[in-house]
Amino acid sequence: MISTPIRVGVVGASGYSGLELLRLLAAHPGVELSYVAGNHESSIELTDEFPHLAGLGGLRLEAYRPEVCADRCDAVFVALPSGSSGRVAAELWRMGKVVIDLSGDLRLPADVYERWYQKPAAPADAIEAAVYGLTEWAREALRSANLVANPGCYPTAVLLGLLPAVRAGLCRGGGTIVIDAKSGVSGAGRSAAGHLMFAEMADNFLPYRVGRHQHVPEIERVLGPEAGAIVFTTQLLPTVRGIYASCYVPLAQPIRVEEVYEVYRNRYEGEPFVHVLPPGQVPALKHVRASNRCQIGLAVDDRTQVLMVFSAIDNLQKGAAGQAVQNFNVRFQFPEETALTGCGVHP
Amino acid sequence: MISTPIRVGVVGASGYSGLELLRLLAAHPGVELSYVAGNHESSIELTDEFPHLAGLGGLRLEAYRPEVCADRCDAVFVALPSGSSGRVAAELWRMGKVVIDLSGDLRLPADVYERWYQKPAAPADAIEAAVYGLTEWAREALRSANLVANPGCYPTAVLLGLLPAVRAGLCRGGGTIVIDAKSGVSGAGRSAAGHLMFAEMADNFLPYRVGRHQHVPEIERVLGPEAGAIVFTTQLLPTVRGIYASCYVPLAQPIRVEEVYEVYRNRYEGEPFVHVLPPGQVPALKHVRASNRCQIGLAVDDRTQVLMVFSAIDNLQKGAAGQAVQNFNVRFQFPEETALTGCGVHP
Amino acid sequence: MISTPIRVGVVGASGYSGLELLRLLAAHPGVELSYVAGNHESSIELTDEFPHLAGLGGLRLEAYRPEVCADRCDAVFVALPSGSSGRVAAELWRMGKVVIDLSGDLRLPADVYERWYQKPAAPADAIEAAVYGLTEWAREALRSANLVANPGCYPTAVLLGLLPAVRAGLCRGGGTIVIDAKSGVSGAGRSAAGHLMFAEMADNFLPYRVGRHQHVPEIERVLGPEAGAIVFTTQLLPTVRGIYASCYVPLAQPIRVEEVYEVYRNRYEGEPFVHVLPPGQVPALKHVRASNRCQIGLAVDDRTQVLMVFSAIDNLQKGAAGQAVQNFNVRFQFPEETALTGCGVHP
Amino acid sequence: MISTPIRVGVVGASGYSGLELLRLLAAHPGVELSYVAGNHESSIELTDEFPHLAGLGGLRLEAYRPEVCADRCDAVFVALPSGSSGRVAAELWRMGKVVIDLSGDLRLPADVYERWYQKPAAPADAIEAAVYGLTEWAREALRSANLVANPGCYPTAVLLGLLPAVRAGLCRGGGTIVIDAKSGVSGAGRSAAGHLMFAEMADNFLPYRVGRHQHVPEIERVLGPEAGAIVFTTQLLPTVRGIYASCYVPLAQPIRVEEVYEVYRNRYEGEPFVHVLPPGQVPALKHVRASNRCQIGLAVDDRTQVLMVFSAIDNLQKGAAGQAVQNFNVRFQFPEETALTGCGVHP
Repeated sequence: MISTPIRVGVVGASGYSGLELLRLLAAHPGVELSYVAGNHESSIELTDEFPHLAGLGGLRLEAYRPEVCADRCDAVFVALPSGSSGRVAAELWRMGKVVIDLSGDLRLPADVYERWYQKPAAPADAIEAAVYGLTEWAREALRSANLVANPGCYPTAVLLGLLPAVRAGLCRGGGTIVIDAKSGVSGAGRSAAGHLMFAEMADNFLPYRVGRHQHVPEIERVLGPEAGAIVFTTQLLPTVRGIYASCYVPLAQPIRVEEVYEVYRNRYEGEPFVHVLPPGQVPALKHVRASNRCQIGLAVDDRTQVLMVFSAIDNLQKGAAGQAVQNFNVRFQFPEETALTGCGVHP
Repeated sequence: MISTPIRVGVVGASGYSGLELLRLLAAHPGVELSYVAGNHESSIELTDEFPHLAGLGGLRLEAYRPEVCADRCDAVFVALPSGSSGRVAAELWRMGKVVIDLSGDLRLPADVYERWYQKPAAPADAIEAAVYGLTEWAREALRSANLVANPGCYPTAVLLGLLPAVRAGLCRGGGTIVIDAKSGVSGAGRSAAGHLMFAEMADNFLPYRVGRHQHVPEIERVLGPEAGAIVFTTQLLPTVRGIYASCYVPLAQPIRVEEVYEVYRNRYEGEPFVHVLPPGQVPALKHVRASNRCQIGLAVDDRTQVLMVFSAIDNLQKGAAGQAVQNFNVRFQFPEETALTGCGVHP
Repeated sequence: MISTPIRVGVVGASGYSGLELLRLLAAHPGVELSYVAGNHESSIELTDEFPHLAGLGGLRLEAYRPEVCADRCDAVFVALPSGSSGRVAAELWRMGKVVIDLSGDLRLPADVYERWYQKPAAPADAIEAAVYGLTEWAREALRSANLVANPGCYPTAVLLGLLPAVRAGLCRGGGTIVIDAKSGVSGAGRSAAGHLMFAEMADNFLPYRVGRHQHVPEIERVLGPEAGAIVFTTQLLPTVRGIYASCYVPLAQPIRVEEVYEVYRNRYEGEPFVHVLPPGQVPALKHVRASNRCQIGLAVDDRTQVLMVFSAIDNLQKGAAGQAVQNFNVRFQFPEETALTGCGVHP
Repeated sequence: MISTPIRVGVVGASGYSGLELLRLLAAHPGVELSYVAGNHESSIELTDEFPHLAGLGGLRLEAYRPEVCADRCDAVFVALPSGSSGRVAAELWRMGKVVIDLSGDLRLPADVYERWYQKPAAPADAIEAAVYGLTEWAREALRSANLVANPGCYPTAVLLGLLPAVRAGLCRGGGTIVIDAKSGVSGAGRSAAGHLMFAEMADNFLPYRVGRHQHVPEIERVLGPEAGAIVFTTQLLPTVRGIYASCYVPLAQPIRVEEVYEVYRNRYEGEPFVHVLPPGQVPALKHVRASNRCQIGLAVDDRTQVLMVFSAIDNLQKGAAGQAVQNFNVRFQFPEETALTGCGVHP
């Protein structure tokens, strides 16, 4: 273990996930934010462009230089767009840094990646080495991981919600799991886009990338063959943050919701960030807002023998920056809740 | 046919559906708004309580008196809460009025109603006589109907979306149709409620009445036995208006989305208010806002042979007051678009 | 008067004001929408790009060609960006068309315009000929106007609110009128802009162009010298539509609010679109949403002898497209409410 | 100084300010949350009613009992409604506790209080003893205060914004300061109210309590006689959180904005929570959301010699719970930023 404070860099700091990383890491007692790079040609004062970061005075947003980054950091979070993020992550990892990559570049085999992302895959050795960082299901591997593929926002919500049922053999073989997922608009990033303007998205709701969202293979890969192919729909909510996954699982055999609840409660007992609600309660997106928490609710439709799993997270926290910090904490042996202790910001 | 203008009353005018009826009827060239009753003991000036109705000056909101209503009206819209609406509708219908009831009271057989609504059913003769007013699927019967059970908001969106596929035999027998439905908060009515406050619902999303929403039997009854039991989830969107239904239908056999599109296009050709989008396009809630229109989008998931149907309406228009006026137009032989010609209010 | 239907064109149809013009004109019984041009190179089906206009089927969005426009239209609405709108309006006006220009190009003397807009002014003869179309204060001139400078959204709300007090001599000479104005984001247009994204504007509020908004001279010019210089602040609201102006007027001498109310009520008596609320009531932005109405509220602060005037409109209707249609109705002798009869869309 | 951890109680925990106190205090390393009371008859598990507080497991919400509270606590935050809060605070203060009262009950002389609040005043000795806790302007007195009157949300934003100018003598004698203030709806509390429903407040904006808001005397009292009477308007924003004050100050003599900026910068240099923006920048409500920070922007209107001061805070943090914790930190000699270190939650 490297002696504290760990010198930490964030590459891709001017995207929403990067900004959330800065917010979180600034309050981490074992971290020295020693390097911040964004998509800027020249170095600028961070708070000039992002006044909400007032209090992080002094930090500068630099143009990314691998050597400078490697020189100044022990660990680096890379939150660049898919296609370039994995390459930067691989580069820094080869230079001996502990790297947590928030993009989709290291989460899939190269051929699957190229089919769904329509981009060249990251270097094979990096894909091979990367540990898929769904913390609650990969803690052991993460303790010694030097390269982490941080999960996607949708997969995090869906997998935390479905894995206990799938692993416990509750799903009917051959039954199709339907996942109707919704996301706040910050998931689409900070770049200006006409259809994401306030005047367009306020009071709106609509699906996007129907049948071809790149998180499908990520979810299916982790769920494994017993879950079969899924139907996965992604839809835009008129909220800033949040992922809400409503999952419909055909049951292998009749089961009472209380029994399902026991399966989930046992699996997640002691987990600081996963809260399984008792039958009759459902997650609300707002209850997890701006927190690293996941709320899971359960119901069984007796008439059709379908298990309903509702799973809610904040896309920028448990769905991105928060889980990345959680993985960092596991890797560097900090208490797992360090810098992540907050409750949901409500109201 | 009664000679124009038809003298029209609205009973239950101070709820959101009632207010929308007033907005629409005020612009109807063949209607004289001759009676408006709400939940008020004494008569008040309508625009005193509802300043957005400025322009309907002179109208008063009265306490409901059956004889006065019958005396002043040829036709009456009843938009009272379930449990009382059907009784008032039955009473006026027996007095020879043409009555359009917007509640759920006349849509179901008495025993089914009492099981799902947990309230005493409306008079049996009224339930028997009422024509279920999903206009596009009941036009003939509506032309001579003296008592109309106006459909619920969720059933309207779901049925317009599913009926063409079900009637064309595209659904797999024994396959469970999953309907993940979302509603804007105006669907919950005007009464003050803690969980519907702006501070609670802004940036929020959550399911409610999971597995026991009273629209389940209404949907199943119209879909008929070939569709089987459905899984139906209702969820609150942080929007004021709108119903968005995402429906997942296991297919009887492989079919291309273009073929499904043809089925839908043929069925709805010439319909002024139902717009079937070509494959690749999806409805957006905002495109139908404050209009009587329904947008339908279609997709087929080739990997699982599931047909996805997306259906969007405005809950207060096509889901309530708008469809009620449409049915009124059919009944009184006005052009069907009268007072309903507007496009969606966008942005 | 040209015999109905008037053949009408809209140039600049793909902006928010242009789209609202199409929505309104499509329901105008005396109008034939004969020409629609936007910022497109080639002609496209209008509803392909704007599905909320379903129902206007058949209309095409063309690239602007002056001769084609002049050939097909009797009257033209021009809603292009400032800088080009006035020139197109002048061109069509010289070709003998009745033209209503929604931009700021024809509202100010050339020198004032160039100072505040930082752009070359429109042709002098067009500026000279244009009638400033604040309908309630210019009706006579509008009846014969062939070129109309449709007022800005902020000036409409502010002037309707302040003119009665100013003209009645209620303002203290030398006292500075403070106008704290707020606008929904649709006022900033449809072009993609980072700071207007939903993720940025939701839950936000901020001023912009402090001390240099181009509507300052437009307001001062109409108010006239007795009102003196104003302080005018423009701020972005997290709403889609609406202008809300809170005006603070130092009084010449003590006066009771009831007396001020009488002044306003007398001035606007019989006006279909201006509603002066009795003392104790205040306008709400939502009460005028998607309508052509203006609500005005009044209060007097006894401790400081300041008159407060609150004025609310929909920026795309009374603040743009609605007032343009109102002016069109005045010019072509249609009843002034034609195609504008709706109440505010509430909720 | 009492040895850490300080045993802390929150009375009135089920209101929005109380809930925010719990969120903040739970992360305070020097605090043991030893007592939590709300408006409940019987004791309930806190997270049963407030699932967003998951992570504060084990805490119970009890019915308030003075002796139990005094027995278990060294310091108590009281966040009850005006009228009862001051009495409870006085009671606990007399029992030797350090008490921070978040209501308006201890902020005004009894006669002024009763005139503006229309309620009986709190005990005279408590009003007398209470230190007005606008931290940046009262730090010395707070170090030894046993009873703190925590400022109101509006006064905090307004006073932080105006005091430097007033104290530096920049205001014109006899000139009326106009304060156009806006608040998110959480300022109105958690109780269900029809006009605060999502369907009513979304897309809305309106003033309330025009000319009679109870924060007027609180602001004038602290500003002092040189500022004179103010015009103060409070308006509801369609946001959950936030106070935005736009202040218009007639200047005593011409001054450049850069000079005003120097006055402010000098005054707030070193303050961790007050950020004075350079001329040309303005605060955005969202930049301070869910943080204890205040942003101040400055402009001078050269044409009218009016200074514009824009001040933004989060009403539940710097405007209530955050400032209360800040005052607690000062009183108990914790570093002032303890438990308050976060940046604004953006987006």
